[in-house]
Amino acid sequence: MKSDMETPRDIVLLGAGNLASTLGPRLRASAARVLQVFSRSETKANALAAALEAQPIQDLTRVAPGADLYLLAVRDDAIAPVANALARHLPPGSLLAHTSGATPLSALSAYFARHAVLYPLQTFSAGREIDFESIPICVQAARSEDAEALLALARRLSRRVLLANDEQRATLHLAAVFVNNFVNHLFGIGEHLLHEKGLSFELLLPLIEETIAKARTMPPAAAQTGPARRDDRGAMTRHLEMLGAHPRYQTLYRLLSESIQKAE
Amino acid sequence: MKSDMETPRDIVLLGAGNLASTLGPRLRASAARVLQVFSRSETKANALAAALEAQPIQDLTRVAPGADLYLLAVRDDAIAPVANALARHLPPGSLLAHTSGATPLSALSAYFARHAVLYPLQTFSAGREIDFESIPICVQAARSEDAEALLALARRLSRRVLLANDEQRATLHLAAVFVNNFVNHLFGIGEHLLHEKGLSFELLLPLIEETIAKARTMPPAAAQTGPARRDDRGAMTRHLEMLGAHPRYQTLYRLLSESIQKAE
Repeated sequence: MKSDMETPRDIVLLGAGNLASTLGPRLRASAARVLQVFSRSETKANALAAALEAQPIQDLTRVAPGADLYLLAVRDDAIAPVANALARHLPPGSLLAHTSGATPLSALSAYFARHAVLYPLQTFSAGREIDFESIPICVQAARSEDAEALLALARRLSRRVLLANDEQRATLHLAAVFVNNFVNHLFGIGEHLLHEKGLSFELLLPLIEETIAKARTMPPAAAQTGPARRDDRGAMTRHLEMLGAHPRYQTLYRLLSESIQKAE
Repeated sequence: MKSDMETPRDIVLLGAGNLASTLGPRLRASAARVLQVFSRSETKANALAAALEAQPIQDLTRVAPGADLYLLAVRDDAIAPVANALARHLPPGSLLAHTSGATPLSALSAYFARHAVLYPLQTFSAGREIDFESIPICVQAARSEDAEALLALARRLSRRVLLANDEQRATLHLAAVFVNNFVNHLFGIGEHLLHEKGLSFELLLPLIEETIAKARTMPPAAAQTGPARRDDRGAMTRHLEMLGAHPRYQTLYRLLSESIQKAE
């Protein structure tokens, strides 16, 4: 590990959404200073800047030169436009990093020679406390010195830091859609089916907890149980009949069951 | 709540699989006595009976008359045959209960007038400790006195006890397939995608934990995020391309995304 001297200390945070609002306080707690917070929304810029004792700015022409790191925490489709605007106002030797799983490193290469990625693999929601130290942070940079510096910064934020290339990061982002977005949708289907029969979703929580507890201790493929896994045609037929009023759920039940059977 | 006098005390456990092995010790801890453990497997019958200070039997003709409850913890397709055999050896006034989510109460009606269901909504695995007191237990019985008695017994095992009819219990079982079996399969897909790029499934665990943590505090439909939810066509197209080598995952990605969008 390199010395602290190389760890970015003065940071400008571009964005004031869920990620920036979670990341900002962690950066401060890890001995970095947040100089400025940029957001088009005055309310958001002011709120986050106040929490971080930083300067709120709503105009990219006011971004301060000389920071060690310009950290982009904006929507994917705003990355290139914001980088382009920054390139017109900052010294060419500035270091710019984005925080997107789905966006390649090269999205920044036209604007800054020193460009990088710092991607925390987590879902961030306003007002939810998160154990940030357990979140994997993926680092990538065009220059190895910058990669070292960002690894050092990331290690101050989390116990799980890794170098990951575009393909690995995009795969993590894709896998996250399966285990977060799609899993949550299956929870929603469970909730819907129960509500129709006057039952509470909370009844499923202990089972859901155990599903996760198993995933912590054994590979999911080895933990697979259920009618599809044991090829219980009777149970599957009854379930498909019960889903008769919900053809969408019926299709998902059939395809997920087939996929479980083909995975064996 | 009725007096302890009505709670079944002397129990014969039919079955020695994962459920019986989890339930047996909980029954003993709740002041019930397990008189006998039946299993076709001598090894299993002996092991569980020894742990419960019960008599192991491998032959249903040896089942003892006079117990307060005969509790069936066998595979769904063994429920009717075992009940039929028991009816030939036990007094007609005996109380028989099965523990299956998917099996109607009436599956026992041809064999015993006093028939019931005691269904714990959980996935049981050999060797895994479970917080049994948090597991919902569904009770149903042909006679209201038996329902009261089984509710009292269930309340000694768990904090979450409810009366549930066949349809409600079957719906819980169906919802459990979505939130346990299918969710676990999505974890398996995430694991597979990561392994192909040299990444560990463990990287996804903090995200999975947060997915569950959200489900504890808000309805899943309200917690939904991701490319499908925000109709991010670019991200979805890139993800489908990345899944080109896995048409099965591609189909699931497309259908789950469509289902999320139609749920709005």
